[in-house]
Amino acid sequence: MRIGILTGGGDCPGLNAAIRAVVKRGTSEHGCSIVGFRNGWQGVIDGDARPLTRDDVSGILVVGGTMLGTARCHPHKVEGGMEAVQETVVNEKLDGLICIGGDGTLKAAGKVSEATGIPVIGIPKTIDNDVVGTDAAIGFDTAVSIATEAIDRLHSTAESHNRVMVVELMGRHSGWIAVTAGMAGGADIILAPEEPFDIEVIVKKIKHRHRYKNFSIVAVAEGAVPAEGSNWTGSPTIDERGNPIAGSIGHEVTKAIELMTGFPTRLTVLGYVQRGGIPTASDRLLGTRFGIAAIDAIVAGESGKYTALQGEDIVLKDFSVMMGKTKWVPKELLEAAWGL
Amino acid sequence: MRIGILTGGGDCPGLNAAIRAVVKRGTSEHGCSIVGFRNGWQGVIDGDARPLTRDDVSGILVVGGTMLGTARCHPHKVEGGMEAVQETVVNEKLDGLICIGGDGTLKAAGKVSEATGIPVIGIPKTIDNDVVGTDAAIGFDTAVSIATEAIDRLHSTAESHNRVMVVELMGRHSGWIAVTAGMAGGADIILAPEEPFDIEVIVKKIKHRHRYKNFSIVAVAEGAVPAEGSNWTGSPTIDERGNPIAGSIGHEVTKAIELMTGFPTRLTVLGYVQRGGIPTASDRLLGTRFGIAAIDAIVAGESGKYTALQGEDIVLKDFSVMMGKTKWVPKELLEAAWGL
Amino acid sequence: MRIGILTGGGDCPGLNAAIRAVVKRGTSEHGCSIVGFRNGWQGVIDGDARPLTRDDVSGILVVGGTMLGTARCHPHKVEGGMEAVQETVVNEKLDGLICIGGDGTLKAAGKVSEATGIPVIGIPKTIDNDVVGTDAAIGFDTAVSIATEAIDRLHSTAESHNRVMVVELMGRHSGWIAVTAGMAGGADIILAPEEPFDIEVIVKKIKHRHRYKNFSIVAVAEGAVPAEGSNWTGSPTIDERGNPIAGSIGHEVTKAIELMTGFPTRLTVLGYVQRGGIPTASDRLLGTRFGIAAIDAIVAGESGKYTALQGEDIVLKDFSVMMGKTKWVPKELLEAAWGL
Amino acid sequence: MRIGILTGGGDCPGLNAAIRAVVKRGTSEHGCSIVGFRNGWQGVIDGDARPLTRDDVSGILVVGGTMLGTARCHPHKVEGGMEAVQETVVNEKLDGLICIGGDGTLKAAGKVSEATGIPVIGIPKTIDNDVVGTDAAIGFDTAVSIATEAIDRLHSTAESHNRVMVVELMGRHSGWIAVTAGMAGGADIILAPEEPFDIEVIVKKIKHRHRYKNFSIVAVAEGAVPAEGSNWTGSPTIDERGNPIAGSIGHEVTKAIELMTGFPTRLTVLGYVQRGGIPTASDRLLGTRFGIAAIDAIVAGESGKYTALQGEDIVLKDFSVMMGKTKWVPKELLEAAWGL
Repeated sequence: MRIGILTGGGDCPGLNAAIRAVVKRGTSEHGCSIVGFRNGWQGVIDGDARPLTRDDVSGILVVGGTMLGTARCHPHKVEGGMEAVQETVVNEKLDGLICIGGDGTLKAAGKVSEATGIPVIGIPKTIDNDVVGTDAAIGFDTAVSIATEAIDRLHSTAESHNRVMVVELMGRHSGWIAVTAGMAGGADIILAPEEPFDIEVIVKKIKHRHRYKNFSIVAVAEGAVPAEGSNWTGSPTIDERGNPIAGSIGHEVTKAIELMTGFPTRLTVLGYVQRGGIPTASDRLLGTRFGIAAIDAIVAGESGKYTALQGEDIVLKDFSVMMGKTKWVPKELLEAAWGL
Repeated sequence: MRIGILTGGGDCPGLNAAIRAVVKRGTSEHGCSIVGFRNGWQGVIDGDARPLTRDDVSGILVVGGTMLGTARCHPHKVEGGMEAVQETVVNEKLDGLICIGGDGTLKAAGKVSEATGIPVIGIPKTIDNDVVGTDAAIGFDTAVSIATEAIDRLHSTAESHNRVMVVELMGRHSGWIAVTAGMAGGADIILAPEEPFDIEVIVKKIKHRHRYKNFSIVAVAEGAVPAEGSNWTGSPTIDERGNPIAGSIGHEVTKAIELMTGFPTRLTVLGYVQRGGIPTASDRLLGTRFGIAAIDAIVAGESGKYTALQGEDIVLKDFSVMMGKTKWVPKELLEAAWGL
Repeated sequence: MRIGILTGGGDCPGLNAAIRAVVKRGTSEHGCSIVGFRNGWQGVIDGDARPLTRDDVSGILVVGGTMLGTARCHPHKVEGGMEAVQETVVNEKLDGLICIGGDGTLKAAGKVSEATGIPVIGIPKTIDNDVVGTDAAIGFDTAVSIATEAIDRLHSTAESHNRVMVVELMGRHSGWIAVTAGMAGGADIILAPEEPFDIEVIVKKIKHRHRYKNFSIVAVAEGAVPAEGSNWTGSPTIDERGNPIAGSIGHEVTKAIELMTGFPTRLTVLGYVQRGGIPTASDRLLGTRFGIAAIDAIVAGESGKYTALQGEDIVLKDFSVMMGKTKWVPKELLEAAWGL
Repeated sequence: MRIGILTGGGDCPGLNAAIRAVVKRGTSEHGCSIVGFRNGWQGVIDGDARPLTRDDVSGILVVGGTMLGTARCHPHKVEGGMEAVQETVVNEKLDGLICIGGDGTLKAAGKVSEATGIPVIGIPKTIDNDVVGTDAAIGFDTAVSIATEAIDRLHSTAESHNRVMVVELMGRHSGWIAVTAGMAGGADIILAPEEPFDIEVIVKKIKHRHRYKNFSIVAVAEGAVPAEGSNWTGSPTIDERGNPIAGSIGHEVTKAIELMTGFPTRLTVLGYVQRGGIPTASDRLLGTRFGIAAIDAIVAGESGKYTALQGEDIVLKDFSVMMGKTKWVPKELLEAAWGL
């Protein structure tokens, strides 16, 4: 069998582990040929492919990002996209396609499968961890690990200078990184999109805390929003490229806290470092297991499913389970984060 | 309510996160007084206790080991042990006891509860990850992270010198660390207690690999055993203190590979560094969530149960679920480890 | 002898190693009493002091920041400041004062010594590494290590997405962090205050590089400036609190590169994480050696000198050697950075 | 000009930075062709060479070990070795040779230069840091960083279990790693070859310490030796492959301390992990600067010299400065290590 593989959407650590596992398992156990497409769906449209051998994936387990490159491209949104994909499927004699990506990439996979009849298997990745149906997606553990280390570092400066330190973390729709890294790093206040915040409650909490402590750490997801009806609303904006800029929610919260408490307050926007670098052991293992499960599934004739971690097991789920949905941080975690 | 807390068995990273959560949640949300016992059950026997305040647990989230100290002591195996524990329970006016530990510590907790009527809640910790009923125990993720980094380091030397590098990892009964870190670190051969090995198969595999590659990495759990009936059996021994010594299985495997392949083969015994140092974000979060669940449970009147991670949730399980059992590495993982 | 100790200016990793060494060596070898002042010179003015014992400094070697707290306060610039310092010196019966800090803190130390006659010894710290007369100051190695790891992470994303990644690093007056971390991290362009840059030269270099590579990394010191007479000058500004803001040089450079090359270009402002967290082994050793040398010097009757690293040796130098001067990145390094 | 490059002796992190710098600087600034020899002098003898381009060295800055491979081979000790080298020099039309290695590799370089007339420049590398004439050699900073992190980890376990933890570190002739990492990690006792130890003094010190503390950390260089005339002498042995074995000095010291103090005492032999993995920023910078200086030197017609770090500068020194000598840990550092 000839199996194609691509990575779509934002890059993250652990993608290479999945690619490596697909290639090694696919060639050695199943006798498949594996074909890698460059820059996500763009590469399928352009027919930009190359065979992947065991040698090609040697040493990439520890390397962040994706050896295949990635792009935010959806064939069904590009004129002539589906036809071009169809042509590549035929030209490359593909018997199946493994798509590593988030919601968008997998949605495209579903449409491609419908239109062309090619079997597709998805592998979920997103540092945001908001894919429904799996305990974890590739990249999340590393992002949390980086964010936690950053919070650890900010503790030093906060304590030494009697300051409030605000750190803005990734997470536009859900607050997984902010809540998880915030708890692991001992943040005193954690703001997530799941629970709109009242700046006055936060200010009150900080003031109370500073009666006996002289510093506070505030972790803010970039998608956190002020509660409707609260007196203060800020003016959160993210620039068109998603860059950390003045006017981000972290910036607004920083200004408000400094103004309303009188304590010196400083902002750190962690940004792209959260999605780069050496994957944690956990992400490498998850990527590897997902890769194995994906190639096994496609060889077994499955299609329209994605690999998922369920407790200690890797299982397959229908695309419909996750499509168009967001996995929110559960109440229990939000309360725990707030309660400590 | 007055709640006691202790840590028993071997130390590991993440214990302090659990202690901190119990103290913070217990005092702030439930109005409890928390009493810490030094050196596990020994401290309960000796009445060696001290009140724990929020201030006492400030800053310990990032600190490895346990601020309470630990010891391998079981009151029911010590003469007069149960009576001494009973006396302490009365003297300290305890309404409940949170026991952080492995199989032995929780077994003792069950017996103490039976004998004295005091409610007990367990929190599972073990870098070996072999506690039944929970996806993870405190300390495992950090141990795997350290072991993986070590394997990463050995890769450099192996490749530069055309060598076989053997690394002996912790795991006397189960091979979780060896299998997980071995896969995450890209080890070529992984030996776990779950699957007795045939040295000749290993030698053959290494010889085959060295036709096109000039190095190999072998990860060996300290409890790995040769298959019965294989021509070679080694003579694995661990000294009475559990120290890395000549004669360990890693040592035997190293000698055998060098002898039977002719390739220079070197051993690294990772040892105690696997159980020390800064906990990973994941272990801090797990410790924190377990601590919260444990104090909530004891306040809610539960007893004889332990906290467990199940997918994304923290649940309570009866001691009987885990007592006297070992969670083995599942077949799927063993095969995956071998297949790549 | 009774010796006071304080930390002034910005905090950084390695300060606690110096405090620990002063206390341990001072009490055990010289029989001194050590008195710690809180929040730099502010604590001396306020008489906010506490005795420091070996127990107080136990375990702080690995902790970032300063256990004494710090503040940007200069007694000679505060009304009544020098008189208050004089009073504290008498009240605390001080025989000497060890001042850990940068240019400002040591300048104040000189003035205090002149005015009160108390012997003072300085220990240079600054993540900026711009203290004249010493190969290194406390905090620099850790800052470079953090910045380099961040650049490593950005590489993943840059390569995966065909992007230019700009990272703004600390260094208002000199470019030590940007040049050193830039070279260690393999940045393609490095901008330092020592060498005003021409944006058109940079753009040309990036365009040339992107003929055969599809990503670039640009490391910018926050104090980098456009060359006079270059067509583009940007509008670099830093807010009054020194916070990363839109309008910083990194922001301007990012906008200019994107506009002039057409390549997607992203900014990361690393900020405060550069000065926090666990010190590197090198900074711990430097802090320890400086601490030992400082207490030995003051006991030996020295004054008006600071500890300095010279090759493998720790030596003493007169305050005059460093006062009012800046150690620039040498030409050789700047050229090396540019030439690769 | 055609310039050859090789890496000899034990591998270590930072070698690739030097290779990369030679290739990038050599090709871009000087228009040289660079030829890499595989496995040190063995590759020169065998004529096992390949051209190195900028592309070949892309991405290797963060990779430990050496992309060229290494071997302990000296052409003047191999029959026909010098003739074979001469032949390769002629065949490859080499105008110069850059040799990265320790004492042995550079000695061979000197002999090759004498015999063949080819100009040679050396770059010193050794994790042991015992090269005379340079403040640092490639690999040392990373080794210290790894060893320090290991000591940090052992602290957790030592404190939690009331133990003495002994850690055996690399350093057969000099104690740089043990002394430096020992001080940075806060070891209580540090044993280096430079200063033969009296086990009774050590035992006394530990006993004294355990009156008020319940743990100790002992860092032992593998080449540490008992003082002549002390009652106990141990029986230090290292196996023919240099492996950590029972009978090593660490093992002997561990047994003696446990026996003579009665405190539970555990050994960790850190081994090969000290020479592997991602180089620190400092080692990458040193490797890069050495590489630049080496290619510049050979292009400028220098020979028989090695690159050296002197304060902030890179300078050239005659082979005679370092040949046959060992840079010992200075008295000041040994005393400082002992005094804290």
